[in-house]
Amino acid sequence: MVEPLQIASPGPGLHEITDKVGAVVRQAGVLEGVCTVFVRHTSASLTIQENADPSARHDLERWLERLVPRDDPHFTHVHEGLDDMPSHIKAALTSVSLSIPVMEGRLVLGTWQGIYLWEHRDAPKMREVVVHVGP
Amino acid sequence: MVEPLQIASPGPGLHEITDKVGAVVRQAGVLEGVCTVFVRHTSASLTIQENADPSARHDLERWLERLVPRDDPHFTHVHEGLDDMPSHIKAALTSVSLSIPVMEGRLVLGTWQGIYLWEHRDAPKMREVVVHVGP
Amino acid sequence: MVEPLQIASPGPGLHEITDKVGAVVRQAGVLEGVCTVFVRHTSASLTIQENADPSARHDLERWLERLVPRDDPHFTHVHEGLDDMPSHIKAALTSVSLSIPVMEGRLVLGTWQGIYLWEHRDAPKMREVVVHVGP
Repeated sequence: MVEPLQIASPGPGLHEITDKVGAVVRQAGVLEGVCTVFVRHTSASLTIQENADPSARHDLERWLERLVPRDDPHFTHVHEGLDDMPSHIKAALTSVSLSIPVMEGRLVLGTWQGIYLWEHRDAPKMREVVVHVGP
Repeated sequence: MVEPLQIASPGPGLHEITDKVGAVVRQAGVLEGVCTVFVRHTSASLTIQENADPSARHDLERWLERLVPRDDPHFTHVHEGLDDMPSHIKAALTSVSLSIPVMEGRLVLGTWQGIYLWEHRDAPKMREVVVHVGP
Repeated sequence: MVEPLQIASPGPGLHEITDKVGAVVRQAGVLEGVCTVFVRHTSASLTIQENADPSARHDLERWLERLVPRDDPHFTHVHEGLDDMPSHIKAALTSVSLSIPVMEGRLVLGTWQGIYLWEHRDAPKMREVVVHVGP
């Protein structure tokens, strides 16, 4: 089963999509298999991070912001705005796809793991994430 | 076939799990397919690295340690210890899942490739890695 | 279906392999499934990046080159050349495998997404990428 999901991204940051992905897995009815999550963009990415304490995600975002500052004088790809090139770099350093085993009809996520769309652009956007569940 | 593996992690570093993953592949008896490896934690991760010269893994660890120092004054997520927030960042920069094709019943790893659990926390821990082998 | 691809890498940089991977998907004749792309090396990696404006890939390479300089005085793994240890680090920070859903017989890549072999070594090399397409 393949299901494209539309995710409204209000702006930069980690937006949790665990429930949306889990709903596709339930709908697929696969008891044992793999769930593949794929983002169809190069300026947003995917990550699995702690879903309990929001301070962990806050620090993670701030740290990556500092590692890839937007006013880098070496950037030449700047015609789409100063937040564009850092977005591509942040996407390359994180994940475009995740593969999560399914056991007894459920994602085998750990207790503290949540699935996140990581938006790197400033403007609100509609993002597409494709979820596949197979044997 | 889905198999949860318990990995005893003595402390920070790259702990090889190639043999354990390979054993699941053999047991699955799948001649052609994909092996998915997934770590159920957000402060440990997975990587495929050179399995020959230990100095490559040593330098890799030291480099990442320097990139993500634990005494970062900007961290707010510090109540679980100074090694906690750097662990989440290191996990986000490496991999939570790996997908390795299977051919003729074996992982198609290159000659110098080994699969590693990358522990980022200081304390010894029992970590869970889930291995799926499918067509 | 599993297909090993030989990719001639002329030197450092992002070499597009989207067409080669797409050809395997067409040949496999799978209408709905997942395509797994895996690189059998620890000094080259995979990434999905913008395929339109070459300046984005140029900036991405230059940025990573600066993050992982080859003359790092802390490196001990130097007997294969100064470009060797940075290659392993760059590979660890990017991807060894990609999982791309297949819908209606085609990769669900976004409009601006291309699949790239990212060569990190200086010398021309023949690299092997294994492509699996399954249900």
